[in-house]
Amino acid sequence: MNHSPPSEGVGLVTPQKVVVCEPPDELYLQSGRILGPIDVAFETYGTLAPDRSNAVLVCHALSGDAHAAGLHSPDDRKRGWWDPMIGPGRPLDTDRYFVLCANVLGSCKGTTGPSSTNPRTGRPFAMDFPVITVRDMVKVQALLLDRLGIERLLCVIGGSMGGMQALEWAVRYPDRVRSAVPISTTGASSPLSIGFNKIGRRAIMSDPNWRGGRYYGQEPPRDGLAVARMIGHMTFLSEASMRRKFDRRISGREGIYAFTAQYDVERYLHYNGYSFTDRFDANSYLYITKALDAFDLGDGFSGGMQEALAQVKARLLFVTFAADWLYPPSDTDRMEEHLRSAGRDVQHVRVDSDYGHDAFLVEYPLYAHHVTSFLQEVARSTAA
Amino acid sequence: MNHSPPSEGVGLVTPQKVVVCEPPDELYLQSGRILGPIDVAFETYGTLAPDRSNAVLVCHALSGDAHAAGLHSPDDRKRGWWDPMIGPGRPLDTDRYFVLCANVLGSCKGTTGPSSTNPRTGRPFAMDFPVITVRDMVKVQALLLDRLGIERLLCVIGGSMGGMQALEWAVRYPDRVRSAVPISTTGASSPLSIGFNKIGRRAIMSDPNWRGGRYYGQEPPRDGLAVARMIGHMTFLSEASMRRKFDRRISGREGIYAFTAQYDVERYLHYNGYSFTDRFDANSYLYITKALDAFDLGDGFSGGMQEALAQVKARLLFVTFAADWLYPPSDTDRMEEHLRSAGRDVQHVRVDSDYGHDAFLVEYPLYAHHVTSFLQEVARSTAA
Repeated sequence: MNHSPPSEGVGLVTPQKVVVCEPPDELYLQSGRILGPIDVAFETYGTLAPDRSNAVLVCHALSGDAHAAGLHSPDDRKRGWWDPMIGPGRPLDTDRYFVLCANVLGSCKGTTGPSSTNPRTGRPFAMDFPVITVRDMVKVQALLLDRLGIERLLCVIGGSMGGMQALEWAVRYPDRVRSAVPISTTGASSPLSIGFNKIGRRAIMSDPNWRGGRYYGQEPPRDGLAVARMIGHMTFLSEASMRRKFDRRISGREGIYAFTAQYDVERYLHYNGYSFTDRFDANSYLYITKALDAFDLGDGFSGGMQEALAQVKARLLFVTFAADWLYPPSDTDRMEEHLRSAGRDVQHVRVDSDYGHDAFLVEYPLYAHHVTSFLQEVARSTAA
Repeated sequence: MNHSPPSEGVGLVTPQKVVVCEPPDELYLQSGRILGPIDVAFETYGTLAPDRSNAVLVCHALSGDAHAAGLHSPDDRKRGWWDPMIGPGRPLDTDRYFVLCANVLGSCKGTTGPSSTNPRTGRPFAMDFPVITVRDMVKVQALLLDRLGIERLLCVIGGSMGGMQALEWAVRYPDRVRSAVPISTTGASSPLSIGFNKIGRRAIMSDPNWRGGRYYGQEPPRDGLAVARMIGHMTFLSEASMRRKFDRRISGREGIYAFTAQYDVERYLHYNGYSFTDRFDANSYLYITKALDAFDLGDGFSGGMQEALAQVKARLLFVTFAADWLYPPSDTDRMEEHLRSAGRDVQHVRVDSDYGHDAFLVEYPLYAHHVTSFLQEVARSTAA
C-alpha cells in the first residue's frame, strides 16, 4: 500500500541489468556444469563513495527480486519489498551507503533462470537448466560487484534465503565482506524445511500442466504452484500469529456445512497461493527450493560447519525471531557458538516476537535499530 | 511388523458390521440434513460383563479404522493400529474390559461414507454425501452402543481426532460416560490445523482425476491425495524427531545436483504419501478433514468452551506430548482450567517427548501406565 508521496524513501528507482559470463567466459557452477551468458537484474540506491567503501548488498528470499526499495513509477502501487529498511535516515541509510540488490540466479525476475532462453536451443531452458546452489547465486553476485568495481562490501544483509547468501559470502569471500547480517536463517536446511519444499515440488510436478517443465507459451501449472506457495505461507507464520490473524472466523452462507464455505485462514491461503502464480515461474520455484534444500555451510569442509565458520573474517550480526519454526533460533545459536569459539566478532539479537518466520519482513521496528547501530559501528571502524 | 505369534495380544479378531438408521429411521445430522441407512464397521475385544459396566470405546484418528488390535488372519502382516495398548495385561486389559472400536462416519473402512452407495441413486455418494461433524460421528457410535445394549461406557479413549470424539462424548452424553481419555487433541481446531487441511483438500480437488468427486471406477486423484497425506505427515512429526530420523541424508547417484536425488525425508514422505492412496479414499479425506476443521466443543453453547465443559460428568485424563505442534499442550491446558474451575475431576499427564503429534501412536511406554492406573481407579470406583 502506497499512501505516501513517491519522493519518500529512495523515491523513483530504475531497474538495471548487466550480462556476466559472456563468451568465451562461462560460470563454473558448484555442480561442475557451466552456464553463460548470465543476465543479472539489479537495483541500486544511494551513491557509491569515491573509495568504494560504502556498498551494502541486500540479498532477497525465495520469492523476492531486485526491487528492494522505492517505486518504479509514480503510479506504482507497491514499494520495494524491504522499503522501510532502505532510504535516507533508514537503517540502510542511502545518505551514507550505496545499497544494491540483485535478483538471484535461477529466479524469474530478470536474472537468468529456467524460464530464460537457452542459447543452445533458442527455447526456454525449462528443466535443462542446471541445478544451482546458494553458492552459485553468491558467485553471480560477486561477478556483478566486479563489474561495478566494488572489491569489498561494507555489509551483506538478508533474511531467510537472503541470510544464507550473507553467510555464504562471509565464508567463501572472507576478504570481500566487512560485515554480514544474516536474519531468520540457518546454517544448513533441516529435514523439516526440506520436507515442506519437497511437497511443494511434488505438487508442481504432478500438475498435468507442468508437462515436464515445458509449459512456456501454454497454461502454466497454476494449481501445483499455488499449493506449493500455500505450504510456504504456513511456514512463514506461527500458531499464535495465525490465531491473532484468523482465529476460527468463517464466511460463506452455509457456514461450516459446505465445502464452499471458507475459514478466513483458507481464504488467505487461497488468495496468496493463486496470486503468486501470476508473478512467479513454477520452474524457478523448483530450482530455488532445491538450492535451499542443498544449503549447508559446512559442505565441502572436512571440519563441517565449524571449519566453514572459522573462515569468516567479517563482523556478524545475527537476528532471530522467537517463533520462527522454519529456521529456529537454535540453528543460529549453533553458528554463534562456533564463531565465538573461533574468536570471531559476533552479535545475536533475539527478537521476542510470536509472529513467525516472516517477522523479518513485517516487524521492522523490533530490530531495525540494531541494524542501524551495527552498520554505523562497522562504518566507523572501517573509516578509522 | 509381526514377529510375534498370532495368539499374542487379542489374537485373531473378526470384523463386524451393523446397520443403523434403517427406514423409516434416519440420522439427523448436525447440518440439518438426514442420512440413512448407515453401515457401521466395528471390532470388539474381551467380554462384556453381565452388568454391561466394562465397555471401553476406542476412537480412531483421521486415517484410522475399526481394526485397533489383533490380526484378521494368521498371515496378517500388520496388527491393529493400537495393538500394544489393547489385550490381556495391556492398558486396555481385555481380561477386564470389553473394548470396542468403530470406523467413523464419513470414512471408507466399512462405515458409510462418500464412497458408499447412495440408496437414492444406486451410485456412490461422492460429493452428494452430506458434510458431517465429529458430533455426527459420535452420534453414530451412540447408536451402535444402543444396538449392543451398552447404556454407559466405562471409558472413551482416543488420540487426535479420536480425542475430539472422546471430548464430544463427555460433553454431549454426560450420563453415558464414566471417564474419558483425550490424547494429543484440542477443544477446537486452530487456524494452523485448518490451514494444513485446506491445502490438502486443494491438492485433491485440483487433481484432474478428482473429477468433482466422481472418480469411482476410474483412476482416483492419487497425486492430490498423496500431497495431502505428505502434508499430514509433516504435522505428525517435529523438527527434532525429523532431525533424528532423517538428518540431511541423501541418496541418488548425482547427489544434490539432480531432481531425482532424494533426501531421506523426501523418500519417507513420497513413500507414505503414495502408499496411503492404496488404502484411503480421497473423498473421505475431504469430508473428515472438513469435520476436523469444524470441530469446536463450544459450538452451540452461548458460554462457549467453558459452558460446554461444564456439562462433563466423566472423570478426565488428558495426555499431551511436549513437541506436539499440531494440537499443542496449551490447548489442553485451557480445557483443564475450565474443568477445574467447574470442579471436575481432571488429570493431565504431560509427556516430555520431542517426537511430535504422532507420539500417541508411537511412544506407548511413555504414557501407557497412566492409562492403566486411571482405568483401574475408574473401574474400582464404579464397582464401589
